[in-house]
Amino acid sequence: MLGSTHGTLTTDSRRARVIACGEQPGPAVHGRPADVGDLDVSGRPLYADVPDLDRFFRPESVAVVGASDAEGRPNTGITRQLVEWAGRVGARLHPVHPTRPSVFGIPCLPSVADLPEQVDLAVLLVSDPVPVIERLAEAKVRFAVVFASGFAETGADGLAAQDRLTAAARRTGIRLLGPNTNLNAFERFRDDLEGPAIALITQSGHQGRPVFALQELGVRLSHWAPTGNEADLESADFLSYFAERPEVGAVACYLEGLKDGRSFLLAADRAARRGVPVVAVKVGRTETGARTAASHTGKLTGADTVVDAAMRQFGVIRVDALDELQDTAALLARARPPRADGVVVYSISGGTGAHFADLATEAGLTLPALSAAKQAELHQWIPGYLNVANPVDNGGHPVGDHRGRKIIDAILDDPSVGVLICPVTGPFPPLSDRLVRDLVDAAERTDKLVCVVWGSPVGTEPAYREVLLGSSRVATFRTVGNCITAVRAYLAHHRFTAGYRSPFDEAPRTPSPSFRKARALMRPGQQLSEHAAKQLLRAYGIRVPREQLVTSAAAAVRAAGLVGYPVVMKASGARIAHKTELGLVRIGLTSASQVRDAYRELTDTARFEGVVLDGVLVCQMVERGVEMVVGVTHDELFGPTVTVGLGGVLVEVLRDVAVRVPPFGEDEARNLLGDLRGRALLDGVRGRPPADVEALVEVVLRVQRMALELGSDLAELDINPLVVLERGQGAVALDALAVCR
Amino acid sequence: MLGSTHGTLTTDSRRARVIACGEQPGPAVHGRPADVGDLDVSGRPLYADVPDLDRFFRPESVAVVGASDAEGRPNTGITRQLVEWAGRVGARLHPVHPTRPSVFGIPCLPSVADLPEQVDLAVLLVSDPVPVIERLAEAKVRFAVVFASGFAETGADGLAAQDRLTAAARRTGIRLLGPNTNLNAFERFRDDLEGPAIALITQSGHQGRPVFALQELGVRLSHWAPTGNEADLESADFLSYFAERPEVGAVACYLEGLKDGRSFLLAADRAARRGVPVVAVKVGRTETGARTAASHTGKLTGADTVVDAAMRQFGVIRVDALDELQDTAALLARARPPRADGVVVYSISGGTGAHFADLATEAGLTLPALSAAKQAELHQWIPGYLNVANPVDNGGHPVGDHRGRKIIDAILDDPSVGVLICPVTGPFPPLSDRLVRDLVDAAERTDKLVCVVWGSPVGTEPAYREVLLGSSRVATFRTVGNCITAVRAYLAHHRFTAGYRSPFDEAPRTPSPSFRKARALMRPGQQLSEHAAKQLLRAYGIRVPREQLVTSAAAAVRAAGLVGYPVVMKASGARIAHKTELGLVRIGLTSASQVRDAYRELTDTARFEGVVLDGVLVCQMVERGVEMVVGVTHDELFGPTVTVGLGGVLVEVLRDVAVRVPPFGEDEARNLLGDLRGRALLDGVRGRPPADVEALVEVVLRVQRMALELGSDLAELDINPLVVLERGQGAVALDALAVCR
Repeated sequence: MLGSTHGTLTTDSRRARVIACGEQPGPAVHGRPADVGDLDVSGRPLYADVPDLDRFFRPESVAVVGASDAEGRPNTGITRQLVEWAGRVGARLHPVHPTRPSVFGIPCLPSVADLPEQVDLAVLLVSDPVPVIERLAEAKVRFAVVFASGFAETGADGLAAQDRLTAAARRTGIRLLGPNTNLNAFERFRDDLEGPAIALITQSGHQGRPVFALQELGVRLSHWAPTGNEADLESADFLSYFAERPEVGAVACYLEGLKDGRSFLLAADRAARRGVPVVAVKVGRTETGARTAASHTGKLTGADTVVDAAMRQFGVIRVDALDELQDTAALLARARPPRADGVVVYSISGGTGAHFADLATEAGLTLPALSAAKQAELHQWIPGYLNVANPVDNGGHPVGDHRGRKIIDAILDDPSVGVLICPVTGPFPPLSDRLVRDLVDAAERTDKLVCVVWGSPVGTEPAYREVLLGSSRVATFRTVGNCITAVRAYLAHHRFTAGYRSPFDEAPRTPSPSFRKARALMRPGQQLSEHAAKQLLRAYGIRVPREQLVTSAAAAVRAAGLVGYPVVMKASGARIAHKTELGLVRIGLTSASQVRDAYRELTDTARFEGVVLDGVLVCQMVERGVEMVVGVTHDELFGPTVTVGLGGVLVEVLRDVAVRVPPFGEDEARNLLGDLRGRALLDGVRGRPPADVEALVEVVLRVQRMALELGSDLAELDINPLVVLERGQGAVALDALAVCR
Repeated sequence: MLGSTHGTLTTDSRRARVIACGEQPGPAVHGRPADVGDLDVSGRPLYADVPDLDRFFRPESVAVVGASDAEGRPNTGITRQLVEWAGRVGARLHPVHPTRPSVFGIPCLPSVADLPEQVDLAVLLVSDPVPVIERLAEAKVRFAVVFASGFAETGADGLAAQDRLTAAARRTGIRLLGPNTNLNAFERFRDDLEGPAIALITQSGHQGRPVFALQELGVRLSHWAPTGNEADLESADFLSYFAERPEVGAVACYLEGLKDGRSFLLAADRAARRGVPVVAVKVGRTETGARTAASHTGKLTGADTVVDAAMRQFGVIRVDALDELQDTAALLARARPPRADGVVVYSISGGTGAHFADLATEAGLTLPALSAAKQAELHQWIPGYLNVANPVDNGGHPVGDHRGRKIIDAILDDPSVGVLICPVTGPFPPLSDRLVRDLVDAAERTDKLVCVVWGSPVGTEPAYREVLLGSSRVATFRTVGNCITAVRAYLAHHRFTAGYRSPFDEAPRTPSPSFRKARALMRPGQQLSEHAAKQLLRAYGIRVPREQLVTSAAAAVRAAGLVGYPVVMKASGARIAHKTELGLVRIGLTSASQVRDAYRELTDTARFEGVVLDGVLVCQMVERGVEMVVGVTHDELFGPTVTVGLGGVLVEVLRDVAVRVPPFGEDEARNLLGDLRGRALLDGVRGRPPADVEALVEVVLRVQRMALELGSDLAELDINPLVVLERGQGAVALDALAVCR
């Protein structure tokens, strides 16, 4: 049933162990913090500068090129908004227009060359921005924003025009936002809100609108970067800049694509090192979404599973819908780090508590049972017949008097409790008003997270509008799902950053000794034979069975003697798929005569099937273990990636595979295995011994090293199967496919 | 690696086919509509009456037993609400109290016996309702509501008290709501709303509050049944009553447990036959939730996978959170049946459209590409560079003038379109006001479903509050997720009811000829031997290999000759698990001497392992196929259930199993296979031929028949593996475990 391409598994567990025959690659761990200009062994940067965007967001002077106040012109509305914005932020504004004497009463300059001072930011409202960029450079302008559309999002011609824009920015050193962007960076932000803020990055202005609107609910927003087509400045630049800003509590992103995978990861790494949460919607779960998104801002969307893995590796919290983005970002921006992982659900109804506990537990939150002492304490105020173990059901009445607040304080006081969630299914004044006021007051006096789910669909109730939205300490949600998503992200974020070690610090910078050997085995443009592919693995210290390639029956018999009986024999050639199905494999051969017969049969069969052989492999038999697949593929955004799956039916029918984007360390290789649905197979099922997970992790890391060092020269690698033996016995690559570019 | 308990698979596909050797059970299909008193072969009802609850919900006269107007008494508040309610609905109210002369100015009667007329409904506010029930019966009261708590939800004593209440209701014929219920049925319903209404069933008053509050958003609510502990009237009674009411467009349920599985299914069946959508939250996804819910109203929660399957079989739409319940029930109550399954996403931003399309497609909605002609039509009003294939991006400007409405009408006019969804990420007046007004106007003039997702988190915008909420034709959502959930449920509901055939009409009522044979094989209190269990399967026409049970080497050789070489030999006894691991199986025996040796080895091994044998099975070898498991287990709510899984690693490691609750027909048995993640294995992978799915479906139906006929006498059945051969070749049970009660 398993039908591996190989077939050398035997049921006899007393077979001789294979021994490691490859060389160890150089040490993987460097441990030196990366710096400007550092590259990893694949040639990708290990460090990205943080662009100084202070004067972009808070310029002292601004030029508006193409300014207008003529009625009915699109530029007029934009100019008006810029004039208002400049007034608010105290920037001097200089309209530029070849013929107008003034715009909105401000004297107009005929050209950029006439600017009376060195301006920080020029907003270009002209249809062809390229020539203007050169003139801005002469005027020593630092930042430019290009509104015009019609670039990469429109196809090949537009892409060429965008490339010219990028080149102009590079040449002149001007940092450029756009094209195909808008006024979002220059909106009217509320300046009366305090506390940690959300900084927002969007690749579509409309999609940022709901997060921006959070200000009306009292959530502070500090910046909005609408990156458009990212001809120069990209989402990653803003992300790393925001991660360094003290007022930013969380970064919220709406992403359709990425300009470059590595720069995004470096920015996410910066945020992870600083403990700044990054919450992102990334379009492209489906082919429909990816295609539509690509046509919107002309960016690469990447394979979604790879994007997903990359985000998780670097702690980016991916959510689906904009309402989840709002709620999760708002919570993570404002909540202090948790003191404990325990969640207590507190409600005035046993039904509400049971229901919430059910959904929260299913989502993976931990609801610890409160201690007997704590329950006794709560029963001072809550009737004895009600359940207060967690969920805590107060039965309603206690919220109407002094007991309500005491219960909340007693719960928050428990050391196992990090989060208190109170679902309020609907208003029941005056009790509900007092309940939420008590929660708001208690939240002011604790470091712990207090959440309310205001379940009424109406949303005009004073307890919600005035009391809950008036508090920056209580996290208020309108749906159970968003509350659970946000709280889970909050706990996961703090767990992640507490244990975070940047893989960039430990990424290999120089080729290992294996690399020289491996390079000699590469055959550009060809698929290697099974034997050659295994040599490649050996070069990186990955075990393969003892084997010899022979071209005569007599040589086969000699080889079998050297390899040791019993042996497996396989037809070998550059392009043989489904060897077993074609009858090109013989297993369990125990004598010279069997080997001789097998040689003849295999070569006969190959001739009959029209398969060209470079010989026959005589291989050592390997004992049974857990069959895995380990491979390398290339992603348009992230370059080489390492894929691991459970072999046989699990990978073939269920696609039970997981992927990681280099660089990643040993811990992440271990996490990778946890992503497999059939992970339990490695722990031993039906009385089988646990498999050698350490050896598997080591193979994954060596394959990563190979992928980085050989880079795009190794177009594809597929070890299938890698047999993971029982603990302490290692792992052996029984078959491998390698394609050179 | 597969490690089945059997091991008779061979790689030789030229083995002789097994032949069917069991008898056919009687015809499964009766096709007679069930009626009062009809039972299926397991003794469960095939029909449930609809209780006439008209006078419960709209009584002409009401008695309040234990009425009070004394300050500070809990009954005073309740009495006041009832007096107000009676006034609203025009019912005559009679307070009953042994000592008070009047309550709220209404003359009080000292006892139920003094009631001046035959009242429809008595509300009991007394702590011990049992004696009152008897007196109500004498007064010919039809319905009673019991508020008191302290019954099944409190443990054994409470359960006994509740049983007394149930007995009193049965004895007297009074239909009783409660105990442990509340005033929800007598709330102030808005009577100014029109169109199809939601009827609400809850097992927790608070949990119904948000659905009730939908009235404030213009959604009509017709009834609310807070069923409490369901000592008599249960959720199923209300469900079937609501399904018959013309004003009810959908039934919304909040369920913590069920009183009886079959009565719930019969009620759901009634709703399905009538096309009435039922949307339900059912607590109990996790052990935490199930336990907490059980302690709330003292009901059975059932195994969640079984509840889930039962609901899907009968078209009940299960949702997780109350906000999903609200949004889904409101949509299903009010929307007309779809004319097509196609969903078009329409937005003013390419980003918004791409994002929504991505999430909708991932959730399984179909977004057809609009025809070239339709796209050309749309491009009359939408600039040519914008994508209008679906999602339709209008770029913003067209919504500001006459084009906006024309675009909407043109989309709705397309025959492939059943649903138009317009996500509005935030207000952008005046354009957004005009957009939603156009959508509302267009929705008034079409049968098709128009949805808006109002993404602003603020929710005070006039376009939302006044325009959208003012329309009963546009379905308005506040989150993308709830919109997608509801639209998917809407399309699925109508697909389901269009193809629905009640399995109760076709359920077997009388035992098949197989039953007599099977009954003779049952051994109460024992686990059957493998051989006996296979005889049971044979009795129901399920193929097993030719085999003989022998107790000597000589007999084994004779048996092998009869069965036909090659043979498999297995130690046989009442309780042998993991035969293969214990070395108690020998496969591929091709000669008398091998059989003789195998007999000796097996009996020696059994002696060594301390296993008591009743003999050795000599079995026919069966060719390879797809290994499945098929079994019967018992659920506390639903009785016998049939479970099917993919064998080997899929069932062992991934628990890839699916379950169905009898009665179900052939279509549902086929759906069952579709629930398996590894379903593709049956279609043939890696060039293997497709498996005999028809034979598998037939086995599932025969196992169902066996489960129904043997009922609880068959405590457990586990066919593992059932080998499904290639198409046209059938399926063979290689091993089976059967436990008799």
